Amino acid sequence: MSFRSVIKFDVIFRVLSFLLIFESLFLATGIFVAWLYDEDMMPFVFSVGVSLGTGLLFWYFFGRNKKPGIGKREGYLVVGLSWILMSLFGSLPYLFSGAISSFTDAFFETMSGFTTTGATILTEIEALPRSILFWRAMTHWIGGMGIIVLTVAILPFLGIGGMQLLVAEMPGITPDRLHPRITATAKRLWGIYVLFTVLEVLLLWAGEMNLFDAVCHSFATMATGGFSTKNDSIVGFSAYSQYVIIVFMILAGVNFTLHYLALHRKFSKIWANQEFKTYITIIVVVSIIIGIGLLIFMNEGVEKAFRDALFTVVSIITTTGFVTADYYIWPGFLWMLVFALMFLGGSAGSTGGGIKIVRHILLFQNSWLELKRALHPNAVIPVKFNGKAVSQNIIFNVMAFFLIYILIFASGTLILSMMGYDFETSIGGTIASLGNIGPGIGGVGPVENYSFFAPAAKWLLSFLMLLGRLELFTILIVISPAFWKQ
Amino acid sequence: MSFRSVIKFDVIFRVLSFLLIFESLFLATGIFVAWLYDEDMMPFVFSVGVSLGTGLLFWYFFGRNKKPGIGKREGYLVVGLSWILMSLFGSLPYLFSGAISSFTDAFFETMSGFTTTGATILTEIEALPRSILFWRAMTHWIGGMGIIVLTVAILPFLGIGGMQLLVAEMPGITPDRLHPRITATAKRLWGIYVLFTVLEVLLLWAGEMNLFDAVCHSFATMATGGFSTKNDSIVGFSAYSQYVIIVFMILAGVNFTLHYLALHRKFSKIWANQEFKTYITIIVVVSIIIGIGLLIFMNEGVEKAFRDALFTVVSIITTTGFVTADYYIWPGFLWMLVFALMFLGGSAGSTGGGIKIVRHILLFQNSWLELKRALHPNAVIPVKFNGKAVSQNIIFNVMAFFLIYILIFASGTLILSMMGYDFETSIGGTIASLGNIGPGIGGVGPVENYSFFAPAAKWLLSFLMLLGRLELFTILIVISPAFWKQ
Repeated sequence: MSFRSVIKFDVIFRVLSFLLIFESLFLATGIFVAWLYDEDMMPFVFSVGVSLGTGLLFWYFFGRNKKPGIGKREGYLVVGLSWILMSLFGSLPYLFSGAISSFTDAFFETMSGFTTTGATILTEIEALPRSILFWRAMTHWIGGMGIIVLTVAILPFLGIGGMQLLVAEMPGITPDRLHPRITATAKRLWGIYVLFTVLEVLLLWAGEMNLFDAVCHSFATMATGGFSTKNDSIVGFSAYSQYVIIVFMILAGVNFTLHYLALHRKFSKIWANQEFKTYITIIVVVSIIIGIGLLIFMNEGVEKAFRDALFTVVSIITTTGFVTADYYIWPGFLWMLVFALMFLGGSAGSTGGGIKIVRHILLFQNSWLELKRALHPNAVIPVKFNGKAVSQNIIFNVMAFFLIYILIFASGTLILSMMGYDFETSIGGTIASLGNIGPGIGGVGPVENYSFFAPAAKWLLSFLMLLGRLELFTILIVISPAFWKQ
Repeated sequence: MSFRSVIKFDVIFRVLSFLLIFESLFLATGIFVAWLYDEDMMPFVFSVGVSLGTGLLFWYFFGRNKKPGIGKREGYLVVGLSWILMSLFGSLPYLFSGAISSFTDAFFETMSGFTTTGATILTEIEALPRSILFWRAMTHWIGGMGIIVLTVAILPFLGIGGMQLLVAEMPGITPDRLHPRITATAKRLWGIYVLFTVLEVLLLWAGEMNLFDAVCHSFATMATGGFSTKNDSIVGFSAYSQYVIIVFMILAGVNFTLHYLALHRKFSKIWANQEFKTYITIIVVVSIIIGIGLLIFMNEGVEKAFRDALFTVVSIITTTGFVTADYYIWPGFLWMLVFALMFLGGSAGSTGGGIKIVRHILLFQNSWLELKRALHPNAVIPVKFNGKAVSQNIIFNVMAFFLIYILIFASGTLILSMMGYDFETSIGGTIASLGNIGPGIGGVGPVENYSFFAPAAKWLLSFLMLLGRLELFTILIVISPAFWKQ
């Protein structure tokens, strides 16, 4: 039995052809921006040509076969391949324009964009054409859209993660097959995503930002990406702009189904959501601790201290990665708290990356209950989430996720250190990539960038971004031998 | 309902009275050693007096009531209280002799001894009386005996840990109640412990060590403790002595029931033991990697490079903590590998501490199977250990253990950093204490010691040693509110 007879590659290529055509439409916006600012349009014209051409070629060979439905195994391959293919073609404008000369760097930057990581190899960001900076922000925004559809539709369909639990309240979601109403749900959530983006653009534009910066930063905020158009990220913007970005980072890190409920005025359901409450509580408590620390040790004004604390906490927990202060020069305890936040992540169903709050809630609760179980060995004490008992399968899955996450984190750190990077750079680079954050500690601290890494390290980190963004399992299953046997 | 009516404190004090009388017998050996080397005997005379007196007092009030059986809740309290009480009275010789002047330091050193950690606050070890150094090594040896009885008898009785699984092959162990044959089993394992200790003494004595050093180092080896009688640990001893210590560290890190099987020539069961195979494989593989690294980067001879590598790997994985080389000055990748070993630990049922190999096997396997489960959602795919399916309860327990371990590690690191210690010292001190290892990284690297920590940090680290040594749950359950309700 050959592979082709089992895995329907024509189905996969059909989906990929649509994705490439879709990407070329977005690339075409770069032509418009270049025209608008009187910049060279050719890099984008070429990029559109190549990706549209490839997309149409795929479609010509595989696209007209409408019969075969997509199965689970095709689903896994499609998810992994889309991010890789989008990143390959998305790196064309950098290469055609000469903004980034090496393919490794261009791929890293694009993968960092589409995975909404925001780690950059660029050192002179402000020297680049606006059309390129616009495309760079756009990769975030497209990646964010991808994550939303991944969470609400694809992962439940693939049966991965404890996420079913969280999206179950949304109408139209059945974990066993791609229900037609899924499309409607995805569209609704995309509507919210677009609405919030527009709102943020308007609010930032109302401040001192020009429209271009407002759009780019809004794209990067709502996707919890972190690419800025400025060399020093958000440092140079006013307190007003920083507060606006804080608010929208918080919104981007919330489960989008809660926004949907909010629009329908079902506020009681939102307050009852355990993940939301925990997320807000962590932000408030850690910001206050760090704020007090900055007041004492960094000799800042009260407003500035708490703003920097809040901005940093929100930026890291949502895995956005915007920077208003170099937390790595803060006293050890304070930056270590920030470092600890890197292991938390946003809410499930948000555009944020990382381990996610809900997983921590389930794990923490289960560990705690284990003490009770030891005292009452015959009692059945289930983990509860939002008042409902959580099935053992989900707990198992979440625990496996956490362990694999830690294992990949440790392996990534060891491999980077083997390449000669120091301890803090190795752990910082690994968690900042795997968690889709961007800034880490050590050599990849908040005022540093990823340019100094050797090509092999950049490929490793790109892979970690992809792993983290696609909830580990999607990629691990595809590269496991069991997937290819049968 | 008062506490006394629920928890039988008289039963607890009865056990503690026996423990104190038992400890005073061991303390009495210090009188003999002091007499032998013509040192001041009074510190030990006083220590014996105080602990024997207190023990007899406890016995007088609580000891004669033979009726009440010991329940689970009393069991938890007894375990935690024994290590604390033994450490309190065990610190008397240090204080009476003036070898250690502060109570905090004396308690830290004794807790480090009884938990077989081997972290020391002493800076001038060779200047101390031999009787004191003997007692210091003796605390390790007693601690090791305690661990054996804890693993084979007490923890299964309390229903904690996945350890039932491992000791189930031993005759006389029933998890539900303290079977009379438990005593016989414990005695057999103690016999092996004593036998190995005597063997190591003889082999070390046959080398360049005098009898005193041979005894002290054998005590510290078999308990996987790590206290040496020399300022520079094992550095100054011959290759022969180092190899002898390597062999006995490896033996001490093996499940003692396997030694029992070996004595009965049931070798096939030993080779079939997954934990043993994994333990040996990790030692061999990591030693070779580090050995090659040392050859390339440290300009050492072949034999010395591989000896240092093997010694360090065995010393850290068994959580002994003896040192022949300053691994912290090795290239980053090599010391980070050593650091990673700190999270492994010895085998269950050995005197080694840490997370333990068997837990890693179960967790790793379960995570791996989760990928298979995603591909075959309807299949029941259990974790297997030594060819038998492992119950979900055990997997749950092991996962909870791992998560709590990581949580305590993170919290310990943050608290130390809050006290002003740098990143590597904070993580190094925390894992070296929690894992009962001794040397860590940073300020507590292999050629450093714990003297510089503030008293609060020393109490924290003592508590971490206790937590780690008693498999977390024993202590956590006692300090949980649920334990005291009812």
